[in-house]
Amino acid sequence: MKKIGTQTFKLSNPVTILETASVVGSKEASGPLAKYFDHCLEDEFYGEKTWEKAESKIIKETVNTVITKANIPASKIDVCFAGDLLNQCISSSFGLRELGIPFLGIFGACSTFVEGMLLSSMLIDGDFAEYALCATSSHFCSAEKQFRFPLELGNQRPPTSQWTVTGSGAAILAKNGTGPFVTHVTPGKIVDMGIKDANNMGSAMAPAAVDTIITHFKDTGRNPSYYDMIVTGDLGHIGKEIVMDLTKSQGYNLKSNYDDCGVLIFDKEKQDTHSGGSGCACCGTVFSGYLYNQLKQKKLKKILLIATGALMNSTSTQQGESIPGIAHAVSIEI
Amino acid sequence: MKKIGTQTFKLSNPVTILETASVVGSKEASGPLAKYFDHCLEDEFYGEKTWEKAESKIIKETVNTVITKANIPASKIDVCFAGDLLNQCISSSFGLRELGIPFLGIFGACSTFVEGMLLSSMLIDGDFAEYALCATSSHFCSAEKQFRFPLELGNQRPPTSQWTVTGSGAAILAKNGTGPFVTHVTPGKIVDMGIKDANNMGSAMAPAAVDTIITHFKDTGRNPSYYDMIVTGDLGHIGKEIVMDLTKSQGYNLKSNYDDCGVLIFDKEKQDTHSGGSGCACCGTVFSGYLYNQLKQKKLKKILLIATGALMNSTSTQQGESIPGIAHAVSIEI
Repeated sequence: MKKIGTQTFKLSNPVTILETASVVGSKEASGPLAKYFDHCLEDEFYGEKTWEKAESKIIKETVNTVITKANIPASKIDVCFAGDLLNQCISSSFGLRELGIPFLGIFGACSTFVEGMLLSSMLIDGDFAEYALCATSSHFCSAEKQFRFPLELGNQRPPTSQWTVTGSGAAILAKNGTGPFVTHVTPGKIVDMGIKDANNMGSAMAPAAVDTIITHFKDTGRNPSYYDMIVTGDLGHIGKEIVMDLTKSQGYNLKSNYDDCGVLIFDKEKQDTHSGGSGCACCGTVFSGYLYNQLKQKKLKKILLIATGALMNSTSTQQGESIPGIAHAVSIEI
Repeated sequence: MKKIGTQTFKLSNPVTILETASVVGSKEASGPLAKYFDHCLEDEFYGEKTWEKAESKIIKETVNTVITKANIPASKIDVCFAGDLLNQCISSSFGLRELGIPFLGIFGACSTFVEGMLLSSMLIDGDFAEYALCATSSHFCSAEKQFRFPLELGNQRPPTSQWTVTGSGAAILAKNGTGPFVTHVTPGKIVDMGIKDANNMGSAMAPAAVDTIITHFKDTGRNPSYYDMIVTGDLGHIGKEIVMDLTKSQGYNLKSNYDDCGVLIFDKEKQDTHSGGSGCACCGTVFSGYLYNQLKQKKLKKILLIATGALMNSTSTQQGESIPGIAHAVSIEI
């Protein structure tokens, strides 16, 4: 068994992240990480008539870009994991329906990108695939319409709210290569601490992130200082503070090397996104753009990437339910 | 590499289906397979206030039942794969949030049960898990409300429509055991032949089933006669006929040993479900109830189980999109 501790798996042969690609919307293109993305859109419709069709086109173009950059024929990719925030994950299934690669749909809300990396790594390490593709997308307009209110209503956003990233991230993982390498994966358990506010996702997801991070440390015997950077997916400013507090109270000090993709992707002062970025594409684009670049340039050598998801929908909110959270982690080293 | 042919994987060590469980609603309990299910509900609400909460409770009880029947502590289960038809798969995430098992959400629409079996088998064979759990659910009332019209409208159902099965199926797969064994898995590609009628799912999904079935035969070098039974997930009467026709036109005659869970679960003459059953729970309950029983009793020795999914939502239908289909297959032998 490749399991170490209670829920971490150590790969027998580290899996290479062969290539990544990212496409983002115009707001993300005005943020501090703009130069790291492959393509920045000028408008939210991307030439389509609806936001849903735009989001499908974004993931399609991102996947085509990563395949082109990796310089391997699509026919050599053994399996594709993809999912998104739209009902029934239609961005992924419509965007990738012409791909011709065995397709395994996943749903982890905003944790989807790391869930895809984790499953891709396990199938490659289990000798089921030489190449595996994982992809995800989200879109501010389609997400607001679906989870909260139509944008046309002009609802005021509370200070705890986050801004769903418009974009897509994709990665091709490979059995052979020169890294960066996925070495360990820690799939998370569902954690629900009773938060009911759909405009405060960071608070709802933070306890799941803490559970997975501390489990990862206990399973591997590592401390926070083992990593150059510990980075969560889309907790935003409020969720990030909660993670710092909760981990500290359990004896793990993340102060010096912890950040969150939702904090990194927007400029807090200038971009008016309140608590920061969110959405599947938040972790997807920040990893595929910025973090992968830093790893390739050896500016980061060891990172723990933990994507977080809120497993609710608008009906569960209307029915007074709380918001279950989940967080999946991958350990990446050069 | 465990891959044979283009998209089939042969497990190094066949994985045991250790135990299954199934819970169904009252309509399914009046059908021909009633005696094979673990628990038949008397009403669609199951003591809850909403259909969504009822569906969550159904999957929760089904998973608790399979763990009890398998007689292993939940803490020994290394990973859980689950998903359903509700937006953002809330039946699974709410129903299983207290389970405390690493949770990997999947979305394959009605193909979810076999997607879960396939991934469970691969993780066990890849030495990542000793025990893996897979589960799915669907509910007639929540599905009609979400995908088509609220039941209160009393819309007339066209003859091509299928009846979403209310219920849940769950299975625990294990590294060691006496079978039935999963020996091969064939994940499917997305196939979209342009069907746009959300009341004709069988026709939309049948081409994906044909693609996966024929690919499985070509990859393994097997013929239809290798299996005692070839059984699709929820194509219903119309989709079943299409599969028979399309496979025959490509030289594979399924006439003598092919059936569909959506055809098996309801009585066509007496139950007025038009084209038969559908939904994630259709394949989930018919396998977990009837087919697993037949395998354990050695009445069936070799089956090919192919669950089919329609990867659309109500928005894509309203936007005039066609319906992408997918089908995943597992080969099971005693």
